[in-house]
Amino acid sequence: MLDGDEARHLTRVLRAKVGDAVSIFDGGGRQWPARVASIGRDRVELDTGTPAIDPPPAGIPVTLAVALPKGDRQKWMVEKLTELGVTRLVPLETSRGVAEATASAQTRLERVVIEACKQCGRNRLLEVASGRPLDRLLADAAAGSRVLIAHPGGMPLDTAVARSAAAELIALVGPEGGFSAEELGVADRAGAIHVSLGPHILRVETAAIALAARLCVPAE
Amino acid sequence: MLDGDEARHLTRVLRAKVGDAVSIFDGGGRQWPARVASIGRDRVELDTGTPAIDPPPAGIPVTLAVALPKGDRQKWMVEKLTELGVTRLVPLETSRGVAEATASAQTRLERVVIEACKQCGRNRLLEVASGRPLDRLLADAAAGSRVLIAHPGGMPLDTAVARSAAAELIALVGPEGGFSAEELGVADRAGAIHVSLGPHILRVETAAIALAARLCVPAE
Repeated sequence: MLDGDEARHLTRVLRAKVGDAVSIFDGGGRQWPARVASIGRDRVELDTGTPAIDPPPAGIPVTLAVALPKGDRQKWMVEKLTELGVTRLVPLETSRGVAEATASAQTRLERVVIEACKQCGRNRLLEVASGRPLDRLLADAAAGSRVLIAHPGGMPLDTAVARSAAAELIALVGPEGGFSAEELGVADRAGAIHVSLGPHILRVETAAIALAARLCVPAE
Repeated sequence: MLDGDEARHLTRVLRAKVGDAVSIFDGGGRQWPARVASIGRDRVELDTGTPAIDPPPAGIPVTLAVALPKGDRQKWMVEKLTELGVTRLVPLETSRGVAEATASAQTRLERVVIEACKQCGRNRLLEVASGRPLDRLLADAAAGSRVLIAHPGGMPLDTAVARSAAAELIALVGPEGGFSAEELGVADRAGAIHVSLGPHILRVETAAIALAARLCVPAE
């Protein structure tokens, strides 16, 4: 049974009729073939078949920890990170950040993730974590994770990744004004590798998307 | 001397005053230190110093030939391709394309390129070519160029790139509905390598940005 937004989306946007075949997913990797059995005001009954379970993703889990950009750039970034296969997004609280990593931002971004998952055929949701400062993120990082920090003058990304047989990759992207000296110190003490993304000054969302495109490729 | 849009931008948006230091570039790799000498109604006189000439870019030139997405997605894509260092964008005329590759689209996108260059510190403009169909693009391709086509089931991008000691990389991205069988035939006859960008269905602009992020890295 679907209700709320998903029921309305199915009947009013997609204009589903009784008998139509649909596909539903639980965000954790399971997907069911289904057929519309009945349509109520804000409620759709479905006959569901046997779930197919996606194999776990092939590559290393990738967390992007990003000082969120403002407005549409934030939404855009999350859509792209979802399509490209990022496992988890952690909004970073930084001293020069321009957008607050609030609970309402988290909820808004989770909606963007669901839409993007439907659109790109991804069955496991990108996890949008609660906002936190760098020191808390790094203190909580799992053993065996490798931390990369986008910073001018760092080593080429491919060299940094080739060196790391990691259980998880955590890539840090600072705000437009860059990480503060104190924040860089926190990253350095956690063993973060400084990586460069080329000769130009990338916007926050461009750096995050470029990291995702280069870190999330399935093992080749 | 600056006039028109650039003069207005300098005085009204950046609020430059006589004596302020500015930096100007010609889009072809030259950059001058300068100082504002006088400000007129739609005209700014500058005292310019000795130009610094950027060395040619380190990597292989990258052309992205893309069936343009619509509206904001188009503008967004061009901003990101500029930041990431793409050499040339060719709007592709395809049978399933949703946005026309008109001369006015070209002009609009050139403005986006200039803004993005100023913002990211890039001194050579990304070239926005005129729209053309796939067969014309490929007939005009320089000898020694390597053509990649984003297509489901293709080989991993890194494998494809590692195999190609090319003078130029040309990456093709089709419209939302994909290239037609006829277009795929044209690409295949030109020796295009089918490349995959991961397990999800990427939007046009996401595929283009992901290709840029992975092809434009300076030689490492």
